[in-house]
Formats: sequence, C-alpha cells, structure tokens
Amino acid sequence: MKKLIASLSFLFIWNCANAQDPVDYVDPFIGTTNYGTCNPGAVCPNGLMSVVPFNVMGSDENTYDKDARWWSTPYEYTNSYFTGLSHVNLSGVGCPEMGSLLLMPTTGELNVDYHHYGSKYEKETASPGYYSLQLTKYNIKVEATSTLRTGLTRFTFPKGKSHILMNLGEGLTNESGAYLRRINNREIEGMKFLGTFCYNPQAVFPIYFVMRINKAPKQTGYWKFQRKMTGVEAEWDKDNGKYKLYTQYDRDLAGDDIGAWFTFDTEENEQIEVAVGVSFVSMENARQNLEAEQHGAGFDEIYASARKQWNDDLSRIIVEGGTKEQKTVFYTALYHTLIHPNILQDVNGEYPAMETGETKTTKNNRYTVYSLWDTYRNLHQLMTLVYPERQIDMVRTMVDMYKEHGWLPKWELYGRETLTMEGDPSLPVIVDTWMKGLRDFDMETAYEAMRKSATLPGKENLMRPDNDDYMSKGYVPLMEQFDNSVSHALEYYIADYALYTLAKSMGKKEDADLFYKRSMGYKHYYCKEFGTLRPILPDGKFYSPFDPLQGQNFEPSPGFHEGNSWNYTFYVPHDVKGLARLMGGQKKFIDKLQMVFDKGYYDPANEPDIAYPYLFSYFKGEEWRTQKTVRELLAKYFTPKPDGIPGNDDAGTMSAWAVFSMMGFYPDCPGVPEYTLTDPTFDRITIRLNPEFYGKDKLIIEKKENGSPEGYIQKIELGGKKTGYRINHNDLVKGGTLTFYK
Amino acid sequence: MKKLIASLSFLFIWNCANAQDPVDYVDPFIGTTNYGTCNPGAVCPNGLMSVVPFNVMGSDENTYDKDARWWSTPYEYTNSYFTGLSHVNLSGVGCPEMGSLLLMPTTGELNVDYHHYGSKYEKETASPGYYSLQLTKYNIKVEATSTLRTGLTRFTFPKGKSHILMNLGEGLTNESGAYLRRINNREIEGMKFLGTFCYNPQAVFPIYFVMRINKAPKQTGYWKFQRKMTGVEAEWDKDNGKYKLYTQYDRDLAGDDIGAWFTFDTEENEQIEVAVGVSFVSMENARQNLEAEQHGAGFDEIYASARKQWNDDLSRIIVEGGTKEQKTVFYTALYHTLIHPNILQDVNGEYPAMETGETKTTKNNRYTVYSLWDTYRNLHQLMTLVYPERQIDMVRTMVDMYKEHGWLPKWELYGRETLTMEGDPSLPVIVDTWMKGLRDFDMETAYEAMRKSATLPGKENLMRPDNDDYMSKGYVPLMEQFDNSVSHALEYYIADYALYTLAKSMGKKEDADLFYKRSMGYKHYYCKEFGTLRPILPDGKFYSPFDPLQGQNFEPSPGFHEGNSWNYTFYVPHDVKGLARLMGGQKKFIDKLQMVFDKGYYDPANEPDIAYPYLFSYFKGEEWRTQKTVRELLAKYFTPKPDGIPGNDDAGTMSAWAVFSMMGFYPDCPGVPEYTLTDPTFDRITIRLNPEFYGKDKLIIEKKENGSPEGYIQKIELGGKKTGYRINHNDLVKGGTLTFYK
Repeated sequence: MKKLIASLSFLFIWNCANAQDPVDYVDPFIGTTNYGTCNPGAVCPNGLMSVVPFNVMGSDENTYDKDARWWSTPYEYTNSYFTGLSHVNLSGVGCPEMGSLLLMPTTGELNVDYHHYGSKYEKETASPGYYSLQLTKYNIKVEATSTLRTGLTRFTFPKGKSHILMNLGEGLTNESGAYLRRINNREIEGMKFLGTFCYNPQAVFPIYFVMRINKAPKQTGYWKFQRKMTGVEAEWDKDNGKYKLYTQYDRDLAGDDIGAWFTFDTEENEQIEVAVGVSFVSMENARQNLEAEQHGAGFDEIYASARKQWNDDLSRIIVEGGTKEQKTVFYTALYHTLIHPNILQDVNGEYPAMETGETKTTKNNRYTVYSLWDTYRNLHQLMTLVYPERQIDMVRTMVDMYKEHGWLPKWELYGRETLTMEGDPSLPVIVDTWMKGLRDFDMETAYEAMRKSATLPGKENLMRPDNDDYMSKGYVPLMEQFDNSVSHALEYYIADYALYTLAKSMGKKEDADLFYKRSMGYKHYYCKEFGTLRPILPDGKFYSPFDPLQGQNFEPSPGFHEGNSWNYTFYVPHDVKGLARLMGGQKKFIDKLQMVFDKGYYDPANEPDIAYPYLFSYFKGEEWRTQKTVRELLAKYFTPKPDGIPGNDDAGTMSAWAVFSMMGFYPDCPGVPEYTLTDPTFDRITIRLNPEFYGKDKLIIEKKENGSPEGYIQKIELGGKKTGYRINHNDLVKGGTLTFYK
Repeated sequence: MKKLIASLSFLFIWNCANAQDPVDYVDPFIGTTNYGTCNPGAVCPNGLMSVVPFNVMGSDENTYDKDARWWSTPYEYTNSYFTGLSHVNLSGVGCPEMGSLLLMPTTGELNVDYHHYGSKYEKETASPGYYSLQLTKYNIKVEATSTLRTGLTRFTFPKGKSHILMNLGEGLTNESGAYLRRINNREIEGMKFLGTFCYNPQAVFPIYFVMRINKAPKQTGYWKFQRKMTGVEAEWDKDNGKYKLYTQYDRDLAGDDIGAWFTFDTEENEQIEVAVGVSFVSMENARQNLEAEQHGAGFDEIYASARKQWNDDLSRIIVEGGTKEQKTVFYTALYHTLIHPNILQDVNGEYPAMETGETKTTKNNRYTVYSLWDTYRNLHQLMTLVYPERQIDMVRTMVDMYKEHGWLPKWELYGRETLTMEGDPSLPVIVDTWMKGLRDFDMETAYEAMRKSATLPGKENLMRPDNDDYMSKGYVPLMEQFDNSVSHALEYYIADYALYTLAKSMGKKEDADLFYKRSMGYKHYYCKEFGTLRPILPDGKFYSPFDPLQGQNFEPSPGFHEGNSWNYTFYVPHDVKGLARLMGGQKKFIDKLQMVFDKGYYDPANEPDIAYPYLFSYFKGEEWRTQKTVRELLAKYFTPKPDGIPGNDDAGTMSAWAVFSMMGFYPDCPGVPEYTLTDPTFDRITIRLNPEFYGKDKLIIEKKENGSPEGYIQKIELGGKKTGYRINHNDLVKGGTLTFYK
C-alpha cells in the first residue's frame, strides 16, 4: 500500500508540468554537425523507431556524402539534398548502420533513382517527436512523428501527379538486400538486411516492416536496380545496369536494391499519411506494432502523444535560473541521453534473442543499442538516478543477453555483438547499478557472467581476447603495432575494480583480493621517464621510440585506441590517489593534469579523458580547477547550436557529461557509486526521483551566491550538513538537498 | 457402373507392360545438343519439377555459355563444366528462363564462387526420372530423381570435408533476386525471382522452395555477392565485389546473388540426400508438396515411382517391329511430348491465378507452360488422342485463364502471359479438342473468349494487336520493316477458320460466315509474280524489293517471323486446295512444294512449314511424296543421338511431329479434326485409348507388306474398309484398326 501511494504521488508530481515546458527547450538540431552525429528526427524516449531526414547521399552539393568519406549519420545539418526519411536510426554513433526504409515523396514523372529524385529543402523545423521540412523541388511539405515502434509521416502535396517511394536499396547501413511483398494496394511489408557495423562482417540482422498509406494509389509498383552485366549477357535485359520498373507485378520481390512506388492524383494541399511499423522479429509483429500503437490515430494525435512522452520524461529534472541558452543545452542533452539504449521488444513482448535470433518473450522492456565503452562512463549512472525503472530493465536485459549468448554485451546492436571498441564495460554498469540499490535483477547470474569474462582464458574469451597475459602478467603487452593493448588493459582494470568492490560487499573475499590486485596492474604501464602510461613489449620492456602525443586526431597510436597516451594516462579513476603517488605526489599530478588542459592535450570529443576535469577535486584545495575547467568546457563545447556537441555524442555519453556537469555532480569512476561535485549551472535543480526505487520523490540541488570573488564553491551542504567534493550516491539521495555556496 | 468397368479394364491394360519396357527405350540425351534445348534431367510426366544438370556457365571450356551468346537451356551435351542441378526447368524452349535453385556438392575448402566450384564430370547416365554423373574434381557421385513437385538428389561423397551448396544467385533466368530463411540446420526455405522470358520485362514471377537435407551438417551458413562499390564506399565492406560468407547468421537473407552452404564430415561413400520442394504459391505449399510427395521415402523409392509413371505413360503406345534405334527415337519423342504443359497447382490444389497471382484452388490439374504458337500444331492433338484426360484439363486451364485474366493464353509461363510469338493459338486448340469429342469444359465461356480475341479492336486486343486492319482489310499491312505482319495474319486466318467450323457446328451462322470470310483473307498476300505470299504495305501495294528467301537462318525478314516467305507460303492448311488454285492448280502447287524440299528451302527446325510434307497428300497420286519426304526427314533429322532433333524441340512440338509421323498419321490442320496419312515406321502400333473418352480401349495401326517396289502405300483400310489419305479423327477412333498395305 505504501508503495502504491508513493507511486501515485510520483505520478502526480510528474503531471505538474511547468508553465514553460521542458520539451520546449529542446533543439534537436544541436549535435547535427561537427560530427555530433545526432539527428533532428522524430523519436519517442528510448523508442525503437526514429524517423529521420536522410540527406547524406545522391548529390555533390552535399558537403558530406556517406559514400565519399567516413560517415556515420543519416543527417548532416550543412547538407542540402534530401532523399527521404529513414526509419530506425542510430543517434550519436561513430560507425554507419541502420538508416534505411527510405520514404520519399515526389511529383511529376516517376523517377526512382535517388540521384534524381532527391530535393533541396527549406523551412526545416524539429522538436521532440516532430520533424518537418518543405521540399523546394516538389513543393511538398513533409512532417514526421513517431510512436515507440512506428513512424507516421504526413505529406502535403501540390495538385497534380504525386508519388510516394519506399527505397529499400539504400541506407546508411553498408549491408544490402531486401524483400518485400504487397498486402494490398495501400500496404506492403518486407525485410531489409542490415549490418557490418564498424566493419564487423558477421554482425548482420534483418529488420521487418509494414508500410501503410491512408489513401489508395492510382497506380503502384516496384523497382529493382538490375545488376550490371557486360557483353552478350547485358543484351538480355534492357534495364541492365538501370532501375527497372515493375508495373504489372504485385507479388513478392527480393534483391540488393529494390523499392516500391505509389502514384496518386493529388489535389492542392492534399495530405497523405504513411505509417511504418517495424519489428526485429517478424513482419507479423511489425503489423501488430503498427496496429497497437497507431490504432487508426492521425498525425496530430500521434505527435501529441510523442510530445507528451518527451515532456513527461524531461520534466523529471526541472531547472531554474540559468539562461535560456543553458536550458536549451541542458534539456537537449537530457533528450539525447534518452534515445539509446532503446527498446527492442514488440508490443507482444517478443524480441530476437542475443546472437541466435530465436524469438523470445519478455515482460519487462528489452533494450538494445548498448554502446557500452561510451555509456558505461556516465549515461547509465544518469539512468540509475533519474530513470531507475529503465536502468533496472537495461541491466536485466544485459543479464538476459548473457543467458542467451553466454556473454554480457560489449557493443550490442539489435541482438548482435559487434565487439566494437574494447574492455568489459558491462561490469562497471552492473556493479554501479547494484551499489546504488537497484538490485531487482538476477545478480547470481550476473556475477557468474562477470566472473566469466574476468577469468576465462583469452582464447575462449569474447570480451577479453588478451586475458592470458593480463591475468598472468598484470598487463597486456603490445603484440602488434596498433593493437590498443594499453587501452584494453585500462578497461580491464576498471572492470576488475568494480568486480572487486562487488565481491567484497558480497563477502567473496578470495575473488575480491584477486580482482583488486588485478585492478592495480595499471602501474606496470607507468613510465617515469615520460610521466605517462606507455605500452609494454612482450619482453617486458617499454615500447620505443615512444611519443605520448602520437595518436592525436584519430591517428593510429601504438597501444592506445582513438587517442594517445595523454588521453589515457589519467584514466585510472579507481585509484586516482595511487596514480598521483606514482607520479610523485599531488603537486606533480595536478601540474601534469593542468598541463594537459593548458597545452590542449585534452580531447573533449572522445571518452577516454572525459572525466579528467573532475580528477582535480580528489585533492584538497584543487577543486576550483574542476569548476573552472568544467565551466570552460561547457561554455566552449556545449552550445545551443548545431555544432554544440564536441564530437560524436556517442549514444548520449557526451550529453550525459553535460547533464551531470550542469547539475553540479559527475560520476567519474564507473562502478563506484560516488560523484565528484562541481558548481551547477542552474540556481535550482529539482530531480524527480522515482520513489519506488528511492523511497522519496525528489532531490534538490541549489546554488546560493555567497559573494565568492572567483565564483568558485566555498561550501557545500547536503541536507543542511557540510559535505566534501566527493559524495556517495546513497548519501546524496538521502540528503534530499544539495546546496552549493559560492 | 459401365464407366467403372471401362476404367478398370483400362488400368488393367496399362499394367500389362511389355517384357521390354517402353521406358527402357528412352534416351534423355536426345535433343540435348544441336539447339534441341532438351535436357537429360529427372522429371515426371507433366511434372512441375525437373532436376537438370546445369553446365552452361562458369568456364571457358564450355562450348556454349549462357552469358556469352543467345542461350536457352540449362544443359548442353558437348559442354563439360557442371555447376549444379537446377530445379524446375523448361524443355525444348528457345528463350532462357527458369533453371535456378542450383544445388551443388563439393569437397575440400568451402568455395561459393561457381567459377571455381564447378567440376568436370564423367559416367553421365540418364533415363526417365533419373540422372547421374560423377564429378571428377571431387569424386562425388550425383544422382537425381523427382516427383511431380519435388526433386530428390543423392550425393555419394568421398571421405573428408564435404559441402552442399544451394545457389540462388545464378540460373538460366535473367531475373535476379532471392530470399531465404533457415527453418533448422537441415532445412531452408525461400523465394527466387524469375522472369523476363523472351525479353518481356514484366513477365516476372516468384518460385518458392523448401530444401531439406537428411543429415545434420557440421556447419552451415549463407553467402551473398556484395555489390561492387568503388572509391571510399568500397572500403566499408572488405567483401565488396566478392562473395561474402555469413558464418554466424541464420535468420533470413535477401539479395541479388545469395546462397546457402552446408558442411559435413563425410565417410568414404557416404550418401546424403537433398530434397527440394517447390510451389508457385508459397513456401508453406512448397513444404506441403515435399511432405505429401516424398513422405520420408528415400531415393530408390522415389525413383522407382518416377520410372513407373513414365512407363505407364509411354505404354499408352506400344510399337512393334522397327529397329531398336527407331523405338528409341519414338519413345524419346513421346517422352518429350509429356513434359510441357506441366502441372502448376500444389498438392492442396492451390495455384497463382493468371496475371494477378491471386491464390486460387482447383480440383482438376492446372497446367502451365503453354508454348502455344508451337504446340497448337500437333502436341495438343497428340494429347487429345492418347492422353485425353490431360488435354481436357489443359483446355479447362485455358478457359480458367480467360476467366482470371480476360484472355486465353498465347505463351503462358507460370501464370504470366509472355506474349511470345504471335497469333491466337488457343482457338485451334480449343476447337480441335471440342471437335474430337472432348467437350466437358465450359464452352460457353470458351466461345466468348475466342470471339473476344477475334473481334476486339487492336488497341484493346492483347492477342491481336493489329486486329483493326485485319478485320477491315482482311490482312495485316507491314507497318514496320520487321513487324512479322504476314505471320500474324496467317495465324489469325487459321484461328478464324477454326472458329468458323465451331460456329457452324453450333448453329451460329452469322459468326460462321464472318470468320470463314476472314480465314480466306490469306489470298491478299498471294503474289503471282513470285508465286509466294508477300508482305503488303499500308497503301495496299506489295512490299518491294522482295526476296522470298530473305529470312533464312533466323535473319530478320520483312513480314515473316523466324522464317522467310517460302517457310510460310504453304501455311494455309485450312484451304490447301484454295491455295493450289491460286497457284494455278495442282501441278504448279506440287512442283513448287517439291521445289521447296529439293532446293532446301524447307526448314525442318521450326514450326511454320512443319506440316508441308503432308500437303502433297491432299492431291491424288502425289501421296508418295509425303511418304518419301516424311521418311527422309525422319531418317535425317530424328536420330537416337544427342543431336537427334533438328532444332528447338519447342516444348515437344518437334517430337510430336516425329511421334505422329512414325505412327503414320499427322494432324496437319490445327482445329480441323483430320489427319493426313503416311506410312508408319513400325509394323504394328497399339494406342491404348482412354475408354472414358473414346468408349473403347485401343486403336491399332498396322503395316502389311504387299510387295510395293517403291515401298509406298498401295492401299489403306480402316476397320477393314478402304479409306483415303485423309481421315477424320472420330472415324479413326471408331475404326479400331488402320491397316497400311505397301
């Protein structure tokens, strides 16, 4: 009964929306250039479906073309050539994938070649759950919205001959192949083959869809690009090497590059709506999803629902004070943290099991798109605090993946383990969640899973292929020029430290000792000569010649992945003081860390050094450096502009950094339930806690001006009692109010 | 009761097989070179499934390559590079189509590129329902058999690593695209897209299949040829422009060029059987077909059944006397007439309706592969006499096609109207069948259908696009250089003559008069100057300059399709005497016809002049010329060798010519229920009539040597009474015994 009352009051608070709604501050164009790889498409919080403008192919007038350079996002703000709306996309990710089921309206003569049917556009607008533009070539208004598993697009046509195209041949994905069949003249269903994320050729999977138009076309058909043949063979098919139109065929079709077209006679301003439901299980489920989530509702109703979902979710944190721009940055960042992981299961609870694809059924939400090398650092910590009912399902999902596949996820994508980046990032996530009191998951199995990847020999170890040396020597030697060995080991240390704390708390002394010892192995890499971490050769000697700066700007670097030694040297968050001792004490540590910022060695665009600014605060008297640095980084890199994210948002990781930093606290050591404090951006922040998890319904962070000349924090109180610059999660939640005096 | 007894006695006779079985005389290699386009694959009589060696791609050592020249058959006797067994094929057809679902065994390292995995072979054998060879590269024995709708292949492997490949990317068809999915590690199902027969881009359709292996593989996966990309795009996929192997994916796959592989550890001489079921309705039906027709039976049982079906069918005609070679030619020709049309419906009666693809259900056999421009001349007449229960279903099917699609068939292929060749060939078939007393079909609708194509204006007329001029002027003028206008009109005249006889018999005097008049329009084309038919220009003048020989060897010819004026000038079978009068009387007609043979103007390899030899017998005293010519043509062009058919068998039409000619009678005027007689090859021919249709169970043709010095017929008796050289079908059947004295 108590639980019920708590629940109800929680809901009540939820509905007390501010006069100025949080959703109104979100600008989905932030992070859509400068390699932020976010997009302005329509999506629901943690929704499977996103409907995103696709403008990265087909024209030299685009600055960025998916086929002309490394490119990982369906949309780029500075591009100009729109070739459709893509359904189901990744946000803030650094490898191309998804971004298919391209829905395009045109007018005039039917043309199914995207090099020709694309259009420039104007009047582009976006807000959570809504995207719109006007195609200048066709004078068609395009509006998109979505539910969790379906998209709904409304085209406003001019008078004349109009077409709707569904292109299954192109997309951001580099896999090809699709299948489709007609249900009736307003509805098709099919499968599009996806995969090869980050060059992983085996991480492939199908997406199923159903597409339904609310008006019967005058004519409809398919197309297929006929594979290029040469010589005599080419004579057989007059469409050889071209798009072939199928005008008198309406059964099923398969091929590398196929599509369906629908032709209408439209009146001036006639609106036609196109609904697309998807599923990763089957076409039948895609239809069930469509029918359950749209049930005949029109565009305005679906959009109103999406907007409400966003406002409810964003309202979990109410900020007061600060500028409008700061609120825009904050709520947009929060918006970006609520896109991935997203749900995978259909409305009937079915989902494809990890790696096998076997259809399974779940009662809780099944999540997917685990970019864990990124998100284990802060995004899951944000979920744990503000959206714990999601974080617990995310962890349940991870444990279920282990049950299905034998491994916790590393970089899971729609049921496939892509093995992108390195380490064992599930461990800190699970331990962090558990340590913060979210314990309603199968920890026995989770422990088994974590221990497995920590202890299995490398040959059998999907997570830690170089575990043999790691376990026997305490480090991973450099076996090949660019094998990222140091990065691997640094991740293992953090994971093992998390496992140590868990084992200790569970009374597993032997495990605790083992994993603690391993977690300290980072010391092997410390090289006094350079004062940095340095790769170690198989013979135990340091790698030479060594330049700790090698590896800037995504150049390859011996031992380090996507960075250089400076980006990794301070990445020992579980033993900052120990690292400082190695470096010769606090002063040397602080001076060196300050130098990293002063000399521009800090890379704000990638994860390894993302927590560096908070490390100053481990040392008394140096906390102002954290505040100064975070403030500067926020001001410089997180702005209310399309380039307002410093690099790949990394499935919300950069945004989660901003959200925490603007709230005045940051979880700088994944797996350790603590935050380092900094001064908040806003005067007052109310976090609506979920009382089912935290027993209370809010946490308040407030800033009181106390006349500090430098603007740094003078004093911090938690629940009215003075506290230091590092604070335990449970204390914070219990404390109720965190007050900064500056 | 009477009917039942008749039926039983009919079956009894069937089972009285000769000591030397007819099936033993068949040599399926006849017609597999010299452009016969037959194949030695395993097939059941009128079966949907055929399992055919595919040896026309992948190696320069093949003389004939499907991609290097005009090529229309999956197998060529003189080729040497085998790349699998193709499932569902056309026999004796002049355009490439079908010939897909390529099943190949290999050993050693897995290779899915047919350029490499193909093999030379030896020990090739074939008999009805059975085909076998030994792959020299792999030392694998391959044996194939079939049921009506399924194939069964037995591979005998050597010891070691062996593979079974199912290639869905290649085939004789020029359409591409396939879809497949795994049911379990021994079973896949899928769809292959087919079509573009004779360059018709819209005549496309899907074939569905299920493939089941009787041993679990050690490993299994898919492949897909990754479409060729260039520049930066190419870097995304290391398999770009190559066959990509999917080793860790087992859900569904689609693409232009895909396949599935299964890997085994085999013992020496280990046999593995692979069953393939197909359907043109659905994968579910393909599985139903497989389960109903193979029900777990092994190779030997399935083959025994196929052989028995063939022997039963071939035993409908028992020939005595003649050489072994003549029996081989005869029974092989009969075998070739029993391949197309073949059944289309699944075991549950479902089939795709004409042109719409809608699933319909039938109680009788639904036939497909109507190469009517060929088969209307003699094959259906053979069916009517010897296999009337099939012919009636073939006609019912044609009428159902009209009900579904609005048109009788012209060249129907698996539910699509390919519109190949010209004319209105359904009309003579239907009238011929009706006139011979097979009347249990919906003649009211059939008449409506026939009248429609005879009378509808050209613009709306799928069968007769040039009907306007034909109806108003009595002929089709040459509108374009190579528009086959005379050929078109000649077909219309024959069709209209058939319709005239039918209308007359039904008391439709007005129609009868109209169609009779039209059928005589051929006279417009007769040019006294050349003594041949000659194209007419739109202004009514003859086409000039004119060369009646232009068009030999498949060169284009103004006004004539696949031939020249000489090949068409005598093609007025419904008014031979009238034509003779035009030509100046019997002598001039005979001299000119004899000249056609003497000068080599006769083309034995194509249909237009196929009945020429019989035209001599319309004139008293000239009948010996028929006998001499037919005897010479049989001896020269129909031999028990791979080149023993003069050209494309044309779905059994050439073979039907041989069957009739060797039996001593030929239906030289389609639609007219009469035969012209010639001397039979054999001493005694017993045709097992179906008493349900003919009231009696046999027809005997016997030859009695009477000491004729020239070997020509001296006297003919029917039922003991003297008869002439042209005989009515009903008289023949009633007569019981036809005796030739020579």
